[in-house]
Amino acid sequence: MRITPTKLADGRDLIYFDDSEPYASGGATRRLDDPRPLADRTAPFTDPATGATRVPTGPEMRLDRLTGEWIPMASHRMNRTFQPSANACPLCPAQPGSDYQDGEIPDTSYDVVVFENRFPSYWRLPGQDVSEVWQVDGQSLWPARHAAGRCEVICFSPGHTDAVAGVSTTRMRTIVEAWAHRTAFLETQEGIATVYPFENRGPEIGVTLPHPHGQIYAYPALPPKTATMARQAGLYQEATGGNLFADVVRAELDAGTRLLAETGHWVAYVPEAARWPVEVHISPRRDVPSLPELTEVEKQDFAELYPRLLRGLDHFFVDDAGVPMPLPYISGWLQAPVDPSLREPWRLHVQLFSVRRAANKLKYLAGSESGAGAWISDTTPERIADRARQALQEAGEL
Amino acid sequence: MRITPTKLADGRDLIYFDDSEPYASGGATRRLDDPRPLADRTAPFTDPATGATRVPTGPEMRLDRLTGEWIPMASHRMNRTFQPSANACPLCPAQPGSDYQDGEIPDTSYDVVVFENRFPSYWRLPGQDVSEVWQVDGQSLWPARHAAGRCEVICFSPGHTDAVAGVSTTRMRTIVEAWAHRTAFLETQEGIATVYPFENRGPEIGVTLPHPHGQIYAYPALPPKTATMARQAGLYQEATGGNLFADVVRAELDAGTRLLAETGHWVAYVPEAARWPVEVHISPRRDVPSLPELTEVEKQDFAELYPRLLRGLDHFFVDDAGVPMPLPYISGWLQAPVDPSLREPWRLHVQLFSVRRAANKLKYLAGSESGAGAWISDTTPERIADRARQALQEAGEL
Repeated sequence: MRITPTKLADGRDLIYFDDSEPYASGGATRRLDDPRPLADRTAPFTDPATGATRVPTGPEMRLDRLTGEWIPMASHRMNRTFQPSANACPLCPAQPGSDYQDGEIPDTSYDVVVFENRFPSYWRLPGQDVSEVWQVDGQSLWPARHAAGRCEVICFSPGHTDAVAGVSTTRMRTIVEAWAHRTAFLETQEGIATVYPFENRGPEIGVTLPHPHGQIYAYPALPPKTATMARQAGLYQEATGGNLFADVVRAELDAGTRLLAETGHWVAYVPEAARWPVEVHISPRRDVPSLPELTEVEKQDFAELYPRLLRGLDHFFVDDAGVPMPLPYISGWLQAPVDPSLREPWRLHVQLFSVRRAANKLKYLAGSESGAGAWISDTTPERIADRARQALQEAGEL
Repeated sequence: MRITPTKLADGRDLIYFDDSEPYASGGATRRLDDPRPLADRTAPFTDPATGATRVPTGPEMRLDRLTGEWIPMASHRMNRTFQPSANACPLCPAQPGSDYQDGEIPDTSYDVVVFENRFPSYWRLPGQDVSEVWQVDGQSLWPARHAAGRCEVICFSPGHTDAVAGVSTTRMRTIVEAWAHRTAFLETQEGIATVYPFENRGPEIGVTLPHPHGQIYAYPALPPKTATMARQAGLYQEATGGNLFADVVRAELDAGTRLLAETGHWVAYVPEAARWPVEVHISPRRDVPSLPELTEVEKQDFAELYPRLLRGLDHFFVDDAGVPMPLPYISGWLQAPVDPSLREPWRLHVQLFSVRRAANKLKYLAGSESGAGAWISDTTPERIADRARQALQEAGEL
């Protein structure tokens, strides 16, 4: 694998991860630089609404006192005069000779590429003080801070209609290396609380760009899910001396009723209290806080397992004609908090789930889930596991 | 107002709440009893899959150890052989002479009616021990309990195409009385942690029955949102001696930047850290734990305010032709926990929000929200408040 860091015209980082020689990106005849006339996104710009010159400010996040959560607001102003056109994919490699200038990836091919999101929800401006706190409306009840994290995009393949389910083990290994590389970098940035690499797949969850891609969020405040899991793991350790994550995997192995796949280094199972209509957790057999701490053999093993599971899950639902329906899913790495006092006990794992609950039905997050936060499963974890094992078999992956 | 409790054929409670004389339901010439051949839902039944006789069991809930949340499972078996037909509304009043027998409301008219959900997510069977705990797969890590709560349905109006936004103050007052009546009853049932009356409105959030109705959930475990707010309020009281809910309302009144409406007894505002594209909280001016503790004048005042706000919000988004679009929303009462040690400090309030973020766009809860629990606002609370005030004005309600 070759890693080639470069910059986009507006100053954003872009990094190519090439599988193997001959490297797809950055060859002598290919472009590496972004030819677009994008303004430096940290430079003063003319506000189109008022005509005034403005200095970009990063997004703000405010403390929601009733929940203790920090909510970032799209309250920042950036130079958004350059709008991508709708008729071409900004994640496809650059097309030589094309007059389409909106592509985010300047090279004419790539294997895997990561770049900073152009209009990020979290963004730290150079030199910004991450500890700065101010008050909304001058009220001491309402502290606000810079939403000084970072949002990156990861393209999994140059092929516009590809899917992670269909990539080779070699490509999947490159993807794992890219996730680990970005986690290692982002975890050491000032003010970052944890790193969450994830993929949203399917129009059913609002994905408008079909090009296979994911995102990597470096949060400046611990996400509620991570905070809750850290609290639970801490309470469990106090009570039993054990690692909650390790004991959950051990109990799933003991029970055996919801196991989907086992490899030398990973276990995939439907969790005992699954809340989504389809939910799979994929955990290593060892306590690993975050991706950079995986061994080579663990990374390779995951690269072999993960696309197999995805191909199986693409058979979970079939349409009226019996044709398998690609599963809309959200899949992300729950990694340890950066804070040393919360980093252990932990065991990173993938939580993959779907909002589809039948061929023609979605699960909506209505009053109970969205209003009260109280989840209700429409099925049972055992039924999910039975169907998932069948689907893996039907796909020839079990 | 007249309250008439009765029973459905399968033993479920149904309660009419009539506005005023002449009462719409239960008159001498009208039916009060359910004529349907529904089996007692607690009686043994024949399992259609196996032909075996089975005793109904209530739903189970399992502890999700990683989050500490209790997740109810649709794992129970009830007599589901009687399926409602699709061509008529089960929430409309009974139609004399019609052969449609699936309506849930036996009377030929009603004002407001509440009944137990036929296929509830939470249900306590008669005599069931709410403290009983067992282990999933024999693992001590995984306690399970009866999901021994209760799910009720509330119909807000007999008119199939009506909306809460359009009801009279008299009808709204009856709805408030019904919510308070049910809360008072449910809060005193064994094992109930809190009561959440809510409405889901619009196909955008999965509502399939357009008939104006809501639900009332009596949870057997504190919903995560209520638990989080109770924890935050407790920490705030320890630190400052104050009531967090009261101080939030006071700060909103001081700031004034996000206020939508004030009455003698209520304040409606967009909260300072709103996370949804449209979000409005409606709070009394006084610390009230739950609906039964509202005074007559507070209930009347709310009945005047709430439909006005809904009519205004139905102007928040307009289509391409400039026609206002009915707002899809979730609106619910965050009431105090029943547990005396958590019941104060509290102040009940309505949290109303929408997944619509533009005339042709919805907010999807994708990776960050659903996977990590980390919310990102696409707008600012001040922009929401500005537009909401405009909408109220355009609707003639401000």
